[in-house]
This record gives sequence, C-alpha cells and structure tokens, in this order.
Amino acid sequence: MRTEVSRAESEKFHEECGVFGIYAPGSDVTQLTYYALYALQHRGQESAGIAVSDGKVIRCEKGVGLVAEVFQETEKLEQLQGKAAVGHVRYARSNEELLINAQPLLVRYRNGHLAIVHNGNLINRYRLRSQLERKGSIFQAGTDSEVLAHLIAHSGEDEIIRAIKKSLLYLRGAYTYIVMTPEKMVGIRDPYGIRPLSLGKMANGYVLSSETCAFDTVGAEFVRDIEPGELIIIDKNGLQSERFAPPKRQALCVFEYIYFARPDSNIHGRNVHLVRKRLGRRLAQEHPVEADMVTGVPDSSLSAASGVAEQLGLPYEMGFVKNRYIGRTFIQPSPEIRALGVQLKLNAVRQIVEGKRVVMVDDSIVRGTTSMRIVKMLRHAGAKEVHVLVTSPPVVAPCYYGINTPARDELIAARMGVEEIRRAIDADYLGFLSEEGMLECLNLSKDGFCTACFNGRYPIALDDFALDKERRG
Amino acid sequence: MRTEVSRAESEKFHEECGVFGIYAPGSDVTQLTYYALYALQHRGQESAGIAVSDGKVIRCEKGVGLVAEVFQETEKLEQLQGKAAVGHVRYARSNEELLINAQPLLVRYRNGHLAIVHNGNLINRYRLRSQLERKGSIFQAGTDSEVLAHLIAHSGEDEIIRAIKKSLLYLRGAYTYIVMTPEKMVGIRDPYGIRPLSLGKMANGYVLSSETCAFDTVGAEFVRDIEPGELIIIDKNGLQSERFAPPKRQALCVFEYIYFARPDSNIHGRNVHLVRKRLGRRLAQEHPVEADMVTGVPDSSLSAASGVAEQLGLPYEMGFVKNRYIGRTFIQPSPEIRALGVQLKLNAVRQIVEGKRVVMVDDSIVRGTTSMRIVKMLRHAGAKEVHVLVTSPPVVAPCYYGINTPARDELIAARMGVEEIRRAIDADYLGFLSEEGMLECLNLSKDGFCTACFNGRYPIALDDFALDKERRG
Amino acid sequence: MRTEVSRAESEKFHEECGVFGIYAPGSDVTQLTYYALYALQHRGQESAGIAVSDGKVIRCEKGVGLVAEVFQETEKLEQLQGKAAVGHVRYARSNEELLINAQPLLVRYRNGHLAIVHNGNLINRYRLRSQLERKGSIFQAGTDSEVLAHLIAHSGEDEIIRAIKKSLLYLRGAYTYIVMTPEKMVGIRDPYGIRPLSLGKMANGYVLSSETCAFDTVGAEFVRDIEPGELIIIDKNGLQSERFAPPKRQALCVFEYIYFARPDSNIHGRNVHLVRKRLGRRLAQEHPVEADMVTGVPDSSLSAASGVAEQLGLPYEMGFVKNRYIGRTFIQPSPEIRALGVQLKLNAVRQIVEGKRVVMVDDSIVRGTTSMRIVKMLRHAGAKEVHVLVTSPPVVAPCYYGINTPARDELIAARMGVEEIRRAIDADYLGFLSEEGMLECLNLSKDGFCTACFNGRYPIALDDFALDKERRG
Amino acid sequence: MRTEVSRAESEKFHEECGVFGIYAPGSDVTQLTYYALYALQHRGQESAGIAVSDGKVIRCEKGVGLVAEVFQETEKLEQLQGKAAVGHVRYARSNEELLINAQPLLVRYRNGHLAIVHNGNLINRYRLRSQLERKGSIFQAGTDSEVLAHLIAHSGEDEIIRAIKKSLLYLRGAYTYIVMTPEKMVGIRDPYGIRPLSLGKMANGYVLSSETCAFDTVGAEFVRDIEPGELIIIDKNGLQSERFAPPKRQALCVFEYIYFARPDSNIHGRNVHLVRKRLGRRLAQEHPVEADMVTGVPDSSLSAASGVAEQLGLPYEMGFVKNRYIGRTFIQPSPEIRALGVQLKLNAVRQIVEGKRVVMVDDSIVRGTTSMRIVKMLRHAGAKEVHVLVTSPPVVAPCYYGINTPARDELIAARMGVEEIRRAIDADYLGFLSEEGMLECLNLSKDGFCTACFNGRYPIALDDFALDKERRG
Repeated sequence: MRTEVSRAESEKFHEECGVFGIYAPGSDVTQLTYYALYALQHRGQESAGIAVSDGKVIRCEKGVGLVAEVFQETEKLEQLQGKAAVGHVRYARSNEELLINAQPLLVRYRNGHLAIVHNGNLINRYRLRSQLERKGSIFQAGTDSEVLAHLIAHSGEDEIIRAIKKSLLYLRGAYTYIVMTPEKMVGIRDPYGIRPLSLGKMANGYVLSSETCAFDTVGAEFVRDIEPGELIIIDKNGLQSERFAPPKRQALCVFEYIYFARPDSNIHGRNVHLVRKRLGRRLAQEHPVEADMVTGVPDSSLSAASGVAEQLGLPYEMGFVKNRYIGRTFIQPSPEIRALGVQLKLNAVRQIVEGKRVVMVDDSIVRGTTSMRIVKMLRHAGAKEVHVLVTSPPVVAPCYYGINTPARDELIAARMGVEEIRRAIDADYLGFLSEEGMLECLNLSKDGFCTACFNGRYPIALDDFALDKERRG
Repeated sequence: MRTEVSRAESEKFHEECGVFGIYAPGSDVTQLTYYALYALQHRGQESAGIAVSDGKVIRCEKGVGLVAEVFQETEKLEQLQGKAAVGHVRYARSNEELLINAQPLLVRYRNGHLAIVHNGNLINRYRLRSQLERKGSIFQAGTDSEVLAHLIAHSGEDEIIRAIKKSLLYLRGAYTYIVMTPEKMVGIRDPYGIRPLSLGKMANGYVLSSETCAFDTVGAEFVRDIEPGELIIIDKNGLQSERFAPPKRQALCVFEYIYFARPDSNIHGRNVHLVRKRLGRRLAQEHPVEADMVTGVPDSSLSAASGVAEQLGLPYEMGFVKNRYIGRTFIQPSPEIRALGVQLKLNAVRQIVEGKRVVMVDDSIVRGTTSMRIVKMLRHAGAKEVHVLVTSPPVVAPCYYGINTPARDELIAARMGVEEIRRAIDADYLGFLSEEGMLECLNLSKDGFCTACFNGRYPIALDDFALDKERRG
Repeated sequence: MRTEVSRAESEKFHEECGVFGIYAPGSDVTQLTYYALYALQHRGQESAGIAVSDGKVIRCEKGVGLVAEVFQETEKLEQLQGKAAVGHVRYARSNEELLINAQPLLVRYRNGHLAIVHNGNLINRYRLRSQLERKGSIFQAGTDSEVLAHLIAHSGEDEIIRAIKKSLLYLRGAYTYIVMTPEKMVGIRDPYGIRPLSLGKMANGYVLSSETCAFDTVGAEFVRDIEPGELIIIDKNGLQSERFAPPKRQALCVFEYIYFARPDSNIHGRNVHLVRKRLGRRLAQEHPVEADMVTGVPDSSLSAASGVAEQLGLPYEMGFVKNRYIGRTFIQPSPEIRALGVQLKLNAVRQIVEGKRVVMVDDSIVRGTTSMRIVKMLRHAGAKEVHVLVTSPPVVAPCYYGINTPARDELIAARMGVEEIRRAIDADYLGFLSEEGMLECLNLSKDGFCTACFNGRYPIALDDFALDKERRG
Repeated sequence: MRTEVSRAESEKFHEECGVFGIYAPGSDVTQLTYYALYALQHRGQESAGIAVSDGKVIRCEKGVGLVAEVFQETEKLEQLQGKAAVGHVRYARSNEELLINAQPLLVRYRNGHLAIVHNGNLINRYRLRSQLERKGSIFQAGTDSEVLAHLIAHSGEDEIIRAIKKSLLYLRGAYTYIVMTPEKMVGIRDPYGIRPLSLGKMANGYVLSSETCAFDTVGAEFVRDIEPGELIIIDKNGLQSERFAPPKRQALCVFEYIYFARPDSNIHGRNVHLVRKRLGRRLAQEHPVEADMVTGVPDSSLSAASGVAEQLGLPYEMGFVKNRYIGRTFIQPSPEIRALGVQLKLNAVRQIVEGKRVVMVDDSIVRGTTSMRIVKMLRHAGAKEVHVLVTSPPVVAPCYYGINTPARDELIAARMGVEEIRRAIDADYLGFLSEEGMLECLNLSKDGFCTACFNGRYPIALDDFALDKERRG
C-alpha cells in the first residue's frame, strides 16, 4: 500500500482572506474575534490570527491552520486581553510560506505599534515594493499589509490618519484593510469597492467584517457597508467617516454573491442566499430545460439549485452527498483503488438519479475538470440525461484583484465556446447565465460590479509591469 | 476571559456504531476499510479502528477520535496488510473510557485469533456478563463484542461457525456483528433485524457494512441486506448463508430512516433521502399549515423539509446556516458573551425569515430543549410565525437497542401532550407525523419496524434485571 | 535527502518495567504516582499508565509514550481521584503492539474490579495461557498481568487474598505484581526475589516501588524490601505480611545493581552508586592497567568508572559527551552523511583523549557492537591506547526472567573467548570483572543472586515447552 | 488536585543563542545543519530554524520548540535543499513572543534575499532602532538580526560585503552574525570577540559555529576561531578574511568556559572540560576544606567537581541524581505535595551523603535561591557538613552582552558579602574562586576576557539611553 497524504484541493476560485475588527472596551474582544473568525473561516483555512490592543500595547497570536487548530491551546487566547482586536483568516497559494504570511501583521514604527489585516490584491505591489526597497525597506513576507506598513512608516506624517490617507494614494488594486493602533481602529475599502467590508454596532462599540455573517455570530447589528474610497475611524470618540479618494464607479466582485460569501451574509444589504436563488430562477428562465429533477453541487450551489427547481417546477433532490469528515490530512487513494471507482468526497446517489433526466446546477466553470468529473459521476450512477446549468457567465479572464484563479490558458471558456465545453464535459445540455441576466438579478447597473473575469474589462487598468511580475511571483 | 473547551454535544438521539468488513484477497483491504470508515463516520466520532488479517495473523490499530485523527500517522495503516479487514467507528456515552471500548476487539482464544466489531445493544448483557464471570471470565471493556468473544471461547466447539452459532443463542437484544478469524469473515444480524447490515460485492470479494453509502465509497455493488437471524460466511470458498435463528417479525429501527443513516444510503433497498422526502410530504398532508416558506434544521432535516415545501407549494429557503468549522475542541462562550446573543453553530438568517410565517421542519423532538432554542432563534431573527413540523411521532419511551436516548422522564413527550409541548417550545403550531402516516411512507406493514420509542411496545421483552442494571451502568 | 525517522535503539539489556503503588487516603495519590513514574521512567519508556481507586471504583488512564507524553493533557490526571493508585512504565519489545500491552490492566471479574501491574517474566506463561484458554479464557494482550487476572478469576475463591495466593502457586518465573482492588493493595514478589520490590512509608499510608528512588520523589521513607515469596497487604487496617511460598534461595537479578537501577536507589539496603563504585575498584584491582586517564561510557558506567579511576590513581575525565536532546523521533543520517563521521548521540572528545592511554569503563558487553563502535570513536579522536574494563563478567546466556536479551548466538561472549573479543572490538586490553569479584563486592553469598546470564545456571529450571514457545513468541 | 503545567525554569544565567552556518555544495547541508543544531541545543531550547540557499533562492523553516519538535514533520526538512545553510537555536526571555523572534530572519531588500542569524546583544539596539524608524523602517521582531538587515538595506551600497561592513560600524555590543545571501555566507564577530564563533572545514566546504562540538557532529575539522573584528566570506571562490574593525582588546565572555559551552567544545583552542577541571583544582587550592567527599551539581559542575576532588584527594561521589525525563510540560506539584518534600528534578542521595562532610561544587551563585535549596536538600539527606565551593567569583553586576541575568538588586553578591551569603544559603563554608585564580587557569591575561559581571568593568561603555531602554524592554 502506498499512502500519500495531501491537502484537500479544488479547482474552484478561492477567496484569499477574511478580515474582522472590533473596538468595544468592556467586552471580551478577544473571544468575540475568535468566534467571528469561525464565521469567516470559509474565506480562508490556511492560517489564522488575532491581534489585541489593551490601549497601550498590541499583542498578536497567529499560526498555520484552522482557527480551531491555531487556538487549540487556550492559553494563547487568554494571553490576549484588551479593548480592541483585529482578526484574520487566510487562504494561501500552494507555493507560499504559510507562516510568514499569516496575519495580522504587527509592526513597530517610529510612532508606535500597528496591527494590519487585509483582503484583496494590490496590482502595483511589485512596483511599490521595488520603490520602497530602493528607499531601504526590507520585506519579510511581502504581503500587501507589509506594503501599507512601509508606506505609513515612510509617509513623513506623525498623525496616523494623515499617514494612512497619504499612503493609500499609492495603492492600486483591490483592498480592504483594517489598521489598528493601540488607541484606534481604521477600516479602509478601495475606491472601487472590489472587496467587501461592512460595519456593525454593538452595545459598547463597533465591528468591521468582510462579511455580515460574523455580526450575527458576535451579536452585532449591521449598520452599513463601508463605501468605496471611505475610511472609517473608530476610537474612544466613536465613529468617524472620511474619504481618502473621490467616489469611483463601484466595482464589487460579483463572485462574492455567486460563490464566496456565506448564504446568511448580506452584501450591499441583500441576502446572499436570496440573490443566489434569484440567479437560479433567472438561469432557469434563460434555459428552460426539460428534465425530471434538479440537483446542486454541494455546498455552494444549493441555493441557486433550489431556485432553478422552483422555476422549472421540478423536484429538488439530493443528487450528491458530500462527506463532511474528510479534512486536510487525508490519505490519497492509490491508482489501483482509484480505478475501483471509489467516491470519497462526493457521492452521486444512484437511487435518486438513476433513469432520470437530471439538471445539475453549479456556480461556475473554471477549468472544466470538476464539471467533467461530476457529470461522469452522475452518468455512472445511472442518470439518463445530464443538463448542466451554471449560475454565472463563462469565465474567460483571470482575476488580479485577490482571487486565486488559474492562468488564462487554463480557463476552459477562454479556449472553447459553449458547445465545445458541453462536449468536453460530456453534458447533454450546458447553459450559462447571461451577464445581463446576472446583473439584472443583482438589481444594480452594470457599473456596480467587477465582471472582468467574464469579459476582460478590468475596472483598474493593469500595467505590463504588474502582469509580468504577477506571473513570476 | 474564562475559557472552557467542551466537546460538541447535542440532545439528538445518537447511533452508537458503524461496522464494516471486507474480504477481498488482492485488493488493498486496509485502505478500502479506511475509506469506508470515512463514509460511516456520521455513525460514530469518538473512536475508530481497523483489524486486518493476512490469512494467518490479525493485526489491529485503533484509537480515540475521528478516522482522520486515529490514522493521521500513515504508518499505522502501512503496518496493516492483508486480504480481509474489519473496521469500526464508535459513538461513546460521555462517562465511558473511550480507549478501552474502542473496537475492533482482538482476542486470542484456544483456537486462535478473533477480531470482532459490533453495532447494537444486548439487553441481557449484564446477565451474560454475570454468568460468564461466574465461570471465571474477566472483562476488560465489557462491550458486547467482548461478551460474544467469551461465549465463543466457552462454547466448547472447535469449529468457529458452530461456536458462533451456539453463542448467538444466548444473546437477546439488537446486534450486528462482524467476526473475523484469520481465514474467514462472518456477518451476523439479530433475529429481529433491529440494526442494519448490508452485503456488497467487489470484483474479487465481498463487503459488509452498516450502511450502503460505504459501498459507493469503495466501489462495491449492493447485493442485499443481511436477513434477521442470518449468518453470512465469507472465505476462500466464497459466500455462504446460514440461519442461526428462525425468522421473527422484522423490527428494523425506524430511526435509521428518520435520522441516522446518510441520505445516500439505501435501507431495505430504499433510498433514505427519498424516504425522508416522502415523510415530509406526508407530514405536510397531515398538517397543511399556511405559511410563507419552509426551512429545515441542518443537516438531517433537509430532505424532509424539501418534501414539506413541495407538498405545501411553498418555497424552500435556507433559514439556518450551520457553521461547519466548529469541531470538538471549541472554546465555549462565557455567560457574558452568551448574553450578547452569539450564534455559533447555527445562524438563523434574518433577511430570509424576517416578517415571514416560517415552517420549520425537524426530524424529532427528544428533550425539547433544542426545539425551544431554535424557535427562539427564528423569532429573534424576525419570523412572524413559527410552525414546527416533526417527521416522526412523539418520542415517549427510551431505546434499549443501541441508541443513546435520555431517561424516560427527560423525554418531553413522555410528560406532556402536543399542545403543552407547543407552548413549551413557543411555537405557533406544532405537528408530529402520525405513526400510521410514518409507516405508510415506509411502505411496510407495522410489524416491519421497531417503533418502541413512539409507543413503548418493545419487540424484545425487557426483564427487570436488564432494566435495572442498565440504569446502574 | 532521504530522511528516516527511527526510534532510538541500543544494544544494551533492557529492563522491561517499573511498578509503583500507593495507599494513602487523604493524599493526592494520583499526582504522587505521576511523579513516582517520572522517577522510574528509566525502567521503561514505551508506555505509561495510572489506575486509581476511590474506594469503590477504579479508573485507569494509560497510553503509548513517556509519562510526560501520556499525561500531557492534564485532564487525564484530573479525572483520576482516589485514595490508592498503581502506576506502571513499560519497555516494549519492538514487534509488540504497544497500546494493548500498556499497563495497569483493569479488569472486572465476578467479585468486582482489579487493577494489576507487573514486572518480570513468567517462564510458564505459554503453558498457563494454553491451560486457561482450554478453560474458555480469552486473552487480549497476553501479558503476565492478564495471566494472573485469569487465574484469580478462575480460582474459585471469593476472598481476594486467598484467590491471589492460590493463583500464585501456578506461576513460575520472575515477577513482582501489585494488585489493587477498590479497597486493598497487594504487593507480591516471586519466591526467588528475582525482580526487586520495596516498601516505603508515608504519613498516612504506604508505597510500593520497583526502586527506592521513587520514595525520595514522593517524600516516602524506605521501610524494607519485600521478601521473596512474600505478599504484602495494605488496606484501611494498615499493613499485613503473608507468605505464599516457602523461602527459596534468593536470586536477585544482579544486573539491577550493575546497570538497571538508578544510582540513587538502594537495593537490599545498599546504594547502587556506591556498589557500582566498589565494582569499579575491584575491577581495577583485578586489572591494574597502566594508563593516563579513565573514562566511562555515559550514563550507566560513570559510577564504576570513578571507582576505577580512584583505585588506579588516574584522573577521571569526560572522554565522551552524550547529546541529551536526541529523542525518540530523530531523523537518521543518510549513508552519505554517516560516512562523514557524524557523531550524534555520543561524542568522543579529541582534546581530552588525544595521545592518551585511555581506560574505558563499560558495564557490560552483550553483542559487542557498541563496544566496537565506541573503541573506534576513541581511536578516531586520537587515543593512543584503549583499555576496556567491564564491570561484569562475560554474558554467555540469555535471560528468561524479564530482561530483553538477544538470542544466545548473538551474545559475543557465547561465541568467543576474552582475547578474541578484545581483537573483535579492537581494544589494547580487555578485562572483565570476575564473577567472584562481583559477588564479593555485593557482599552476599553466591546464592543471593541470579547470575544465569554469566554462567547459564538458571535458578528456576526452564522446560522445553517454555523455551520453545519463548522463541516463537 | 490542582495541576499547573509550567515550563522548566532555572535561576541560572542563560546563553541566548547558538548559530551555525555551512557552505558545502554537494553535501546535504540541510540535514547537516539539523544535526548541528542538536549539538548546539544546550544554547537555546525555545525556538529553532534553518534557512537554506540553493544558489538562487533561500527558503526557511522555523518554529517554537526544540529542534526535534520544530522538525518533527520531516517534510519541512525535505522541502529545504541547497548548497549552503544557516541554523539557529534560541533561548527566549519569558515575556517575549516566541515565534516572531525565531531565527533565521529571512528578508528581501533591493538587492535580493538575506538570511541572518545572530548571537549576542547590541547595547545600542534601541538607539539604532529609533534612528532607523526615523528613516521609515518598520520592525516586526526588533531583534539584532532585524537591525542589521535594516542597516544593510539602508547602507546605500550594492555590493553585499561593502554593505555589511558599512553597517557593522554602527553596532555597539556583543554579536556574532552569520549572513547568507543566495551565493555567499559571511561570518562576523564583534571587535571585542565577546561571543564565540569558530571556523571548521569539510571536504567540500566550510562551517561556522558558536561551538566546536557541532564540528564533531557534522564531521568537520576545527580550523580556528574567528577573530574579533573579523569578517569571513565563504563562497564559490573559497574562504576570504577581512577586517571590519581594528583589533581591540579581546573580551571573550568568561562564562562560556565556566558554564555555557558543552564540555567537548574547545574555545580559543582549549577544551572546556579540561579548563573546568583546572578551575576546580585551583578552587580547591584556594579553599583547602576538610571533608569526606566531593559532589557536583549536575550537569554543568561535574567537570569542576572532579578537579576539586582530585586536588583535595577526596572521593568524587554522585551526591545528586538528576531526573532526565522532566521536560518542559510538567505538572507542578501542589503546595500540599511540595510539603511532603517531593524531589522531582534533583535528588540528594541519602546513602551517599549521610553523616558525611560534603563539598558541593557549583559553577556560580546568581540569586542564591538555588544554592539555598540544594544545601537544604543535602542537609535533609543527612549531610553532616556542607561546604560550598564555587568555580567563579561572586556575580555583582548584570550582563548587557547577551546573557539573561537578573537585575542587579536580585544578585545576591551585589547585596551581601561572602559571610552573609554563606549564612543565607546555610552552608558550613562558602568559597568562591578568586578572579585572579580564574584568569590564571584560563592562562590568558586579564584583558582577554569580559569579567564585567564579577567587577562591573564593562569592556564596552554603556550609555544611559541603552541602560534605561534595556530596563523598559
């Protein structure tokens, strides 16, 4: 027997981070941040960390793994006490050093300590690093948090808000930051609002979070989303809003709705499950296939699939069952065993799909390999026909704003038309949601979203330098 | 901050075990058993183990924790090589020594080695132990596997099948056993067939499993369920069936359908998801409530809830989101934090339920405390009305056949009528599925199932001794 | 780079166990046992366990690894509370299942619970097991503790002391047992007293231990050694001594003095360090070599080496330094690296031995491979001459009484004379302590010790059956 | 039972680090560094790390714990492959964040990557950090390695050797650095040579190490010590020596000889064990006490104690036995248990010391609390008289050069004369080695060593700023 332990992988897009901040003197901000990170865990499972300020000193604990793993030794939490905290969960690209990139980043500069967490991707990161290095800066991780810390330290401004505002002028790309000084917490969202950041209120303070589901977890009330180009300052004087950039057209990443966010989160005030269900209804209107049943690929497509089922008047069935116990250290099957047709993570249920014309709803097709495999599973389980409906348009261009996408030539829709893809994944029918349809469901004008991955129209222009460096890492 | 790490708990019924056996010379039986245990993991998360026979010697590795934890060191699996294997996952009662009770049990007796796994509960265990002890037996764990091993060793029969058959005559209660000698594997199901055991086929051998979902996982084909009172022998001569007891009325535990089994398993040839959906439809027919939406309590009630939704013509919505990252070592919130209304494991989604008349579908009400809490969550999230529909009749009597139920006086339906329970859990409406309706959905005569927990009619009579000892442990 | 993690090994003899018992109502017997096991850890590093009686129930925690590892989760200790406890550390042969053999053994038999720990080896174990199996007994581990438990259960006696005494009559070999019932603790030493067991006293109770160093650790006062064939009963009535066998000639394992025991232990009232030093003096008298310095092989030969140095009037130098940080999981050097002459666990110090005539003192030569390697290290470090003095006679016969020795034909002295061994290990001189000299140092008549490994005269006759089975395992 | 797990502590001085570097293309530099860190483990047990260059890229793995713990997952080592490597073990002050301070430090600056390890303490660290911060630098750990990295990045020099040399001019204090670029390795020792650094040679390269014992481990040959103010460059062109500072008076930390170094290391070409033995002889000459036996406090005083014994003509006995199994996670005894006189880590051996006039040799007295406790143990074990001889002069001043010493007012000799100390520790006699005697033994002029802790004459003047900041941390 040859055993190979491998990390669970997926060909899906990956959100790269979740951020959380709380300023609430008198509350147990550490434990609340710990719970909030559980709520945001789906946004990143590779590292987790919490930094806590007691008003004078900031302390930080972080590590590689799930929140539950990093804080397994409860002493780590007990050592952190204070009135404000920031937390972070991170998805890491496979070739990165996991530990060194874990956040929060805690630094000392001439005016004291800063803890920084971020979500997103600066497209001029390499240019900025290069400029900073020429000024004598050294980089340990090279993250966007470290870039911001250097800019603040070099800003020449003593007052932190002025220093931050001056630094933000250099940044191009998608970013949300939470910067914590011993006394203040600052929430920042880029001028296009590509990555989400919401504000919540508690009895004795405020919270900031990538997603509102963390508000429910900590008992906070949703106030509003941070606006693009807005900078929110929370301290003993309460809440203060400033702008660091003029309003641009909003360009929220549309995949937050389609795939990343937890269904109980609200984005721009709209519940993600309900939006997905509406996407499913619209998808079914655009592709009124004839079939016997509808099923979704767990877990992200379940909302959309029930929308499809309701629209088509078909029963929604559990065509797949997902094994919830397969963790990250899992012994991979040998080729011999794989040949037996073992179904480990996902099981297509014969008694449900056998002899049926099945509508299989998925949220996106990226490389196409997963779709291929899942269609095959359904056929193997006896499905008579497999109609694949996708709640997003074909993905033809990579993301440079913080989503881990494969290179352009690995995107199946960048190389093939719909009919070719259908044949490639061996579906009887393949229907994508139209971009138009998608945006109508989101009830917002086309300008409100970044849809670059569907049409190559990047809201923030990419220069050659960025693209080139991006590739070389 | 006070931190308290506690094991995740639930007031639900708990299946106590899953068993698996494979006889397939030439296949990697160890790794296949490892995967099968992942598929059965929902039947027990407290300990796991695998025993493997190479035809002469049986070796065993077992430990406390999930399959992934027990076999994290891959060497443990690599040391086990052979042509037949048995595996086990176990749910443990809280006050037990976890390790000593882990299975398989591997013993040496005068005719060699035996590995034994079981699922169920002997109601005359204490009497048998007492009798065996009087003959000089010593017990290390006291499990039903150990009882059977002693009976075999004392049977006076040299031939193992005769020894097993003779031993089985002493047993009263619910049991499935898989007994492995170096050369043979024997599957056993009690004369009432209370706990399930199915037979599958592979290219070069056979498999036995508590649930058929493990067959899909290892690429085996379902053959049939083992019959009540049947004993299946698998060895180099193939498969052989014998009876150790005359056929009794079948009394399969009805909760296997309602709650325990994975939705992609088939029991008695019927898919569990589809049965649950039918239970939901029938439930809605019996209780045609007026409402705006239907939601299920994740994960076990989702199938039934979609049946309810379809029957009532209401949309099925994701009224709750469950946090999948909360593991067994989780720091409990302090009372102060709990008072903030933190929602850790389950989140009722305001934007979905607010202002709505919600039908909440659950599979059972045991103590009532969970229902109380969940109704409260829905109301807190703004639900206008909460109608609770339950896909099983009121539970009025404890189980003595292997399900971990609370004592009779902790069963809310043993103390209260439906209207009282409705008030207790603060629902606007409460409807249980009738026993009649339930059995019709299962499409079998009343006699085919054990429904003792709903009506106190125990298929196997309990004597006072058993009951008394059961209580004293 | 090829990495191979291996358990630290040694060609030395290995003591197989250490036992400890405490009966002291009002004291924290659990924690005291935990500390005592630290003091006995040198007697076994493979598993550890503690069983505690609260007067009614006995609870047990045990596991694979060092005491510190097994009880790393302090909850394990916290769960054990009582007024009496037994503990055990174990050295395991490499091919054994570590966990199943861990002690204490906790069993239920017809008269209640028993916890048993032992040290030693029954030479009629296989015969007894066979007889018991014929009566219907099943064995899970097959240890000598399990054998005794079965004998007690089959004794037909209800009173535990009578049951134990009756059972002991069947045993042949070396053994010390501590048997704990909920109310009593019983210490047992075989009629030849081959393995040690001592009695100590505390303010509110008594302790039993394989070695007296554990008495210092727990603040107990040494009373006396348990006598061969004696059975000590400790309960609420205090201490009571009985005999279960007539006094035989004492045959204490001489290697307890030479190698196993910690230097601060007393055996038969004599301090081990001082005995070793006397052995060293005598050795030097028998072999008055001319040299420049004396060094011992760490750690067991240091006492003897200082005796040699004082007798010869030579300086005692630290010719070797041992690396104390190399634990059990250690990546083995690749052959290429080994070829560089890396010295990982032991380092011969060039500046100390270079150009010197070195007397190297070791406690025994078993296979000869270690001696060969160490002499080579000294020569490599520049020693001009290497004189090897050994504080025991040549080992020519294996031990059947609980010491892990290689088979007879792997014993270098069983195949070669002294001069041949000298050449084999490349020493300039090789001197063994004479058996006579050794016994004179121990100040006891020849009959007081088991010296079978030096002369093949086994105090308890071995029958063919035992020897044969022993070999086949 | 109340259990408290605590890290093993000691009142001893603590060396803060060990550094190792290897440049040996063709050898398995990663595994050799791993072994070298085992040899240096006594210099720091809190964190460990290895950085490896493959000629283009430097990769780093580090973590909290012993070498064996940090590299328990062998994959970590397997991922590191190259032709040069630096390694580090670290002792951390208790209030530090362990992980962030772990070394090597791996940074990117404008000319590429650098890995840096260091041993020592910059006395102008706070001033330098402040100056660098004013230039816009940010500090993550604030270690002396990070200070050097910033200086190099700000040096304005593109060539790394020139950049390093320019940077070193700013440093004041004790330091050894090893700086690794992808192509080169640079060894640096401060102009006073306070902390040691030695050069060794292998078949295909060179090694640098804090102590020569690591050379034996990896099969390297000692070449010479790096000179104070010297900078050694190792690359594909071989070895090159440069000076970055004019020779000052050598001021090697005398405690390297007395206490820190492993006895098989050579410092300045002299074996540490032999030097310690000579210190012991001289100590006995200065204090020719009348007694019956000599014993040393394990492990550091054993060499000196045997020198004392030989000089006094008294037997050297094992008056104490140290428990080698007590690791860092150890459950502390409750006060009740402590009152029983439990002896966990160290055991004074009654049979050896009872009724004896004992000379107890220790290497230093810092706070006096350990001496007090050990004298008490000897008396409790029956020693008639206890004569304490110390192989160093009274410690009256704290160290600012990298040794973790208590504040001045916690140093017993800063507050009391010898007679007072004797009474405080309850010794019958107390003798310190004279500073003169100590230096004579070291065979070097007074100027060759830093003896500031004995006389307050600091070789590098401390300014108020440094002292003040040092105190505030």
